[in-house]
Amino acid sequence: MMPSTGATTAPRIAVDAMGGDFGPRIVVPAAVQAAREGVSIILVGDEELVRAELAGCRTDGLDIRVVHASQVVEMDDKPSDALRRKKDSSIQVACRLVKDGEADGVISAGNSGATVACGMFVLGRIKGVQRPALAGILPTEKDPVVLLDVGANVDSKPQHLLQFGIMADVFARGVMGMDNPSVGILSIGEEEGKGNAAVREAFELLKKSQLRFIGNVEGRDIFTGEVDIVVCDGFVGNVALKLSEGLATSLGRILKSELTSNWLSKLGILLSLGAFKRFRKVTDYAEYGGAPLLGLKDIVIVAHGKSNELAMVNGIRMAATSVRNKAHEHMVERLADHKGLNGSSEKDAA
Amino acid sequence: MMPSTGATTAPRIAVDAMGGDFGPRIVVPAAVQAAREGVSIILVGDEELVRAELAGCRTDGLDIRVVHASQVVEMDDKPSDALRRKKDSSIQVACRLVKDGEADGVISAGNSGATVACGMFVLGRIKGVQRPALAGILPTEKDPVVLLDVGANVDSKPQHLLQFGIMADVFARGVMGMDNPSVGILSIGEEEGKGNAAVREAFELLKKSQLRFIGNVEGRDIFTGEVDIVVCDGFVGNVALKLSEGLATSLGRILKSELTSNWLSKLGILLSLGAFKRFRKVTDYAEYGGAPLLGLKDIVIVAHGKSNELAMVNGIRMAATSVRNKAHEHMVERLADHKGLNGSSEKDAA
Repeated sequence: MMPSTGATTAPRIAVDAMGGDFGPRIVVPAAVQAAREGVSIILVGDEELVRAELAGCRTDGLDIRVVHASQVVEMDDKPSDALRRKKDSSIQVACRLVKDGEADGVISAGNSGATVACGMFVLGRIKGVQRPALAGILPTEKDPVVLLDVGANVDSKPQHLLQFGIMADVFARGVMGMDNPSVGILSIGEEEGKGNAAVREAFELLKKSQLRFIGNVEGRDIFTGEVDIVVCDGFVGNVALKLSEGLATSLGRILKSELTSNWLSKLGILLSLGAFKRFRKVTDYAEYGGAPLLGLKDIVIVAHGKSNELAMVNGIRMAATSVRNKAHEHMVERLADHKGLNGSSEKDAA
Repeated sequence: MMPSTGATTAPRIAVDAMGGDFGPRIVVPAAVQAAREGVSIILVGDEELVRAELAGCRTDGLDIRVVHASQVVEMDDKPSDALRRKKDSSIQVACRLVKDGEADGVISAGNSGATVACGMFVLGRIKGVQRPALAGILPTEKDPVVLLDVGANVDSKPQHLLQFGIMADVFARGVMGMDNPSVGILSIGEEEGKGNAAVREAFELLKKSQLRFIGNVEGRDIFTGEVDIVVCDGFVGNVALKLSEGLATSLGRILKSELTSNWLSKLGILLSLGAFKRFRKVTDYAEYGGAPLLGLKDIVIVAHGKSNELAMVNGIRMAATSVRNKAHEHMVERLADHKGLNGSSEKDAA
C-alpha cells in the first residue's frame, strides 16, 4: 500500500540491483546518481556484489542502503516460476519492501514478465482495475506518446482496453504533465468500424467515456506526435514497441555504414555530427528509462533489459516524480472509483 | 482462371488506371513503361481520362489497350459497397478481365479493402485456402522479408496462420527466388509458449509442418534480415507495416531538418549525399511496388495508395514475373492439394 509521503520526505525507491543485461555494474552507479539527486535508495540483491560496486562510487552522505536477496530471476525464467520458486529473488524482495511500507516504489531492468508478475501478486491491483498494463513512453517528432499496453496482457477484452485508456489518462496528466491528453485506439484504418472485434467494441466504450477520445489511429500516426495516448492490446503493443526499436537500430546501422564507406562521406559526417544527435535521441529508449506498470497499488517501473546507466537513472527519476507529485496516490484514488473505470461517472459498475 | 501462358507469350496485366492518390497521372505512365519492357497492358478506367494521359506518352508499337469503366471506388468506400454497388468500377472490371481470361493478373493502387474484396469474390480462392492473405515485402539490412498477413484478415485462427506460412513459402520460392526460406511467427518473446492464444496454437501447427520453421520472432527481428518469412494476423501485420513506414518517414524528416539547420551540416550533407541513398531505399515502399494477395486463383497485386511511378512499375513487374515464371500456376497447383495446406503431406485434410 502507498504510505503517505509528504513533499518534504525524499521518495524511497527499491532498486533491483541484479536486473538487466549488465546487472549491478550499471544499476548501482545509476542508483548512486539518483541518490545524489535526493532519492532515498534501497539496493536489493547479492549484498557482496552490490557492496563491491558501491565501493567504486562516491557515496558519502548519500541515503543508500543495501538489502540482501539470495536469488536472481534469470531472463529465461518463467514468471510463474520466478514468483513461486524464487521467493528470495531481488525483484520479489524489492516488491516486498514496497508492500511493507519501507519503499514507495520499485524498479527493475530484469525479466519483465517476472517483474510484472511480482508487482501484481506482491503489491496487488487497485480495486476495480481488471488488468494492469505496461505503458511505453515513446519519443515522436513532437512530444512523447504513451502507448499501452506494451506487453503485460494478451488477448485483451474491450473493457480492458477502455481501462488502459483511463489509466494512461491519469498517468499522462499526473506524471507526464500533459494537459487534457488525446486518446486514440490503435487500428488498421481511420474510420470507425475498422479493426478486429475487440477494437471495434472498445471504440464504442471509449467514445462514451469521458476521455478526449479521437478515434482510431494507425501505426503511421504514432511517431508524428499528433496523439498523446494510444491504447492497444499488449500483444500488438509489444510487437509495435520492439519493431520500432529494431527498425530505428537497423536504419541507424545502415546510415552509419554508408556514411563511413568513403572519405568524402566521412568528412561529411564529421561536419554534420551534431545533427545526428537528435536522430539518435529519438531512437533512444534510455530517454524515458522504463515502462510504468499502471493499475497497481504501488509504483512499479519495468526498465529495458538493455538499460544503460542513463536509462536506469531516468527510470528511478520517473518513480521519484510519481512519489513527489503524489501522482500515484492520485491514480489510486481516481481508479479506486469503480465508476471511473467504466469510463463515465454517470454509469454504475458493470 | 489461369489460362496457360507460355514463356513465349507476353504477360497480360490489367491495370486499374483510376487507383491510388494520383490516379491516371501516375498509373498510365507507369503502365507505358511496363509495356516497353514487354508486358501486355490493359488500362481500365475512365476512357477519356486514360486516353488523355496516354496522349502525353510515347506509345508507338506498344501493346496497350484501354477498357472503359464508368465507376471509381473511392478511398472511403466500404469494400462491401464497392463490390455490390460499383459493379462497373475500374477495379471490378479489371478483375473480370482476368476472370474472363483476357488478362493474367490485376494490379490496383486504389482502396485496398475493395481490391481484396473484388479479388476474392470475382476471382475466387484456390480450393483449400481458407483465407487469402496480403504479403508485404519489406526491405531489411540484408534481403527482403515477406510479412503476411498485412491486412486482408483480422482475428485469424491458428489454421489460417499456418496457411499463411505455406502460401508465403510457395510465393517466396517462386516469385522472390528464395531458396528454402525460413519461416517465423511474430510473437512477443523468442521462447515457445510466448504469445497470444492463436499464436501459441499456430506455433504447434507450424512446427509440425514441412516448412523451415524457426519459431517465434519478435518485432525487432523483422528488419535485421535474419528471417525470410514472418507470419502474423492481418491486424498485427497492418499495424506493423504502417508503423514501419511512419517511423522511417519521421526519422528521415528529423534527420533532414537537423542536417539542414546550419551551413556546417548543410556542407556535411552535401558531401555525404550518396550515403543517404541506401537509407532512403531501405525506407521506400516503392522498391517492391505492392503486396500480392496470396491464395486466389489469379494474380492480384495491391499497390500502395501513395504509389509513385516507380512503385507502380515495380508492382506490374512483380505480376509479370509471376506469369513468366509460372509461379502462380505452381502456387495454384501446390495449394490446391488439401494436404499441403494442412502443413504436412502425411496428414489428411482436417
